[in-house]
Amino acid sequence: MKNDKILIDHGSGGKLSHDLVQQMILPVFDNSLLSRQDDGAVFQIGEDRFAFSTDTFVVTPLFFPGGNIGELAVNGTVNDLAMCGATPLFLSAGFIIEEGFSITDLEKVISAMKKAADVAGVAIVTGDTKVVPIGAADQLFINTSGIGRVPDHVNISGRHAMPGDKIIVSGTIGDHAAAILIKREGLPFETPILSDTASLNHLVKKMLDASDGIHVLRDPTRGGLGTTLNEIAIQSNTGILISEDRIPVKKSVSGICGLLGFDPMYLANEGKLVAVVRKDDAEQILQVMKNDSLGKDACIIGEVVSDYPGKVMMTTHIGGTRFVDMLTGEQLPRIC
Amino acid sequence: MKNDKILIDHGSGGKLSHDLVQQMILPVFDNSLLSRQDDGAVFQIGEDRFAFSTDTFVVTPLFFPGGNIGELAVNGTVNDLAMCGATPLFLSAGFIIEEGFSITDLEKVISAMKKAADVAGVAIVTGDTKVVPIGAADQLFINTSGIGRVPDHVNISGRHAMPGDKIIVSGTIGDHAAAILIKREGLPFETPILSDTASLNHLVKKMLDASDGIHVLRDPTRGGLGTTLNEIAIQSNTGILISEDRIPVKKSVSGICGLLGFDPMYLANEGKLVAVVRKDDAEQILQVMKNDSLGKDACIIGEVVSDYPGKVMMTTHIGGTRFVDMLTGEQLPRIC
Repeated sequence: MKNDKILIDHGSGGKLSHDLVQQMILPVFDNSLLSRQDDGAVFQIGEDRFAFSTDTFVVTPLFFPGGNIGELAVNGTVNDLAMCGATPLFLSAGFIIEEGFSITDLEKVISAMKKAADVAGVAIVTGDTKVVPIGAADQLFINTSGIGRVPDHVNISGRHAMPGDKIIVSGTIGDHAAAILIKREGLPFETPILSDTASLNHLVKKMLDASDGIHVLRDPTRGGLGTTLNEIAIQSNTGILISEDRIPVKKSVSGICGLLGFDPMYLANEGKLVAVVRKDDAEQILQVMKNDSLGKDACIIGEVVSDYPGKVMMTTHIGGTRFVDMLTGEQLPRIC
Repeated sequence: MKNDKILIDHGSGGKLSHDLVQQMILPVFDNSLLSRQDDGAVFQIGEDRFAFSTDTFVVTPLFFPGGNIGELAVNGTVNDLAMCGATPLFLSAGFIIEEGFSITDLEKVISAMKKAADVAGVAIVTGDTKVVPIGAADQLFINTSGIGRVPDHVNISGRHAMPGDKIIVSGTIGDHAAAILIKREGLPFETPILSDTASLNHLVKKMLDASDGIHVLRDPTRGGLGTTLNEIAIQSNTGILISEDRIPVKKSVSGICGLLGFDPMYLANEGKLVAVVRKDDAEQILQVMKNDSLGKDACIIGEVVSDYPGKVMMTTHIGGTRFVDMLTGEQLPRIC
């Protein structure tokens, strides 16, 4: 970071984001909970363990096929808590609103937040509203933070992947980013692509009830599946081997990626999860996922290996192998 | 709200902010915790009671006499938790950074956050960083959310003011807003006015240890002391009678207010609290406050009365009386 300017790539969720956090934020804040770099912090207070997570949403456009910034903000933090194995309980909502923003649109966003909170079974219990003059913010930004309770037997972390573990993805990748992209660019696509924004906590609960062999849960948002798998490989100091043929991608998403030069491996998802699970339990967990509407397209895409620790290897469609790196650069700013 | 546009006044912390929350947000989110409208939500999980609060900081300039946005963001949420009577424990930090923002300045802000967290005795355990293109945000916004634990015997709320209670303010009012104002306008003042940004949790602990007669705690930030007292009067459905002569205002702050036409009663504070306490305990609590550097200028400014419920009355310097309303309009956008 010799350049003294923050770049768009610092917010990509990929390599530069990783560097910013690793080199600048972690050394200063310096505490063991933050350093674990999971989707939320897990700590004990009294008899109970809790998860705590925060996420800020700057998506543009605010309204897109399949949702709006309101449900995205609720589902995003609900999912971060669920990826800690927690039962999400309470959410906060912090709004930054640009002067002149439509009250009707704000009502739509707030109403979507309430609906999403009801579906997830969480309550929005505290909030804050700031208004800034025209030009000081682009329409509306929302921060949500959340608290969940971690059941006694659950111990999920990006550090827990072990060689032999199977890697499951809960459904097709890239839907959210493709929906945003089409809306943003005004592309005339016949097949509508909808954002997959959804709260995954009920699916996660079913998975945790079915097996005590779930080692890692992660939702591949910014940076996409490719970056998420790299993070897990680094945190657990293992290799990851996946098969390109097995990664579920909708034809329409594949199509737009081909047309515009995007790689679905790096597209953001807002209603999908990656699970790293004990080999012997993989089929059982997969079945539980397939029985849930949010996991119906789930599949095993690969496994954890002891070779090439910290790296992700993929066998490609044409039968070769190549390393899959973290996202470098930024494909789509303000995707979430 | 017949106009369909959000106005700057909606973010003032005063009357329009109150209306926005009352008429639009509370009815939709509809839950008893949020409806209490205290500085944070207090709820029970298992055996323990917790406070949870969120605040977003959009202050400009980012660096001002006495502090910067970093410590303001930490102290602000620490104080909101303390005003619930909670012991603050864990904070989250969500950054929205404008592309091109100086990394050196970001380091200064993060370092100030760490120092403030250390002073308050809290840990920043989870975070999020978003970068938006140039022009989509003004430099840097920070959201902090926080969790604290509420001791068993503590039961603080804006609804608990009772006729006869004494009203204590912990020190001089308006310092933060005056410091921002001078910096923003580039005014050549001889006496430096510093922001009062500070974490009040240690002071609050001493007060709670000294007496079980503390009914309300509130930090008069946006909207100032005048608005805060009105909120308490409305929440508790009591009247409040204060004496203008007793309200501590620094001469320099008074001076700038006279010069520029501001009323210190509506200026934001970031290191002051208002306590509504049982009459018989008031002197003892005051003494405890005066013994702490953050409460050395504390004084009793008035009392809770059964007349004119929901209103704040002030006996003025010249011996008359007048109602003190909530802030209407916005004196100083982006003060915190």
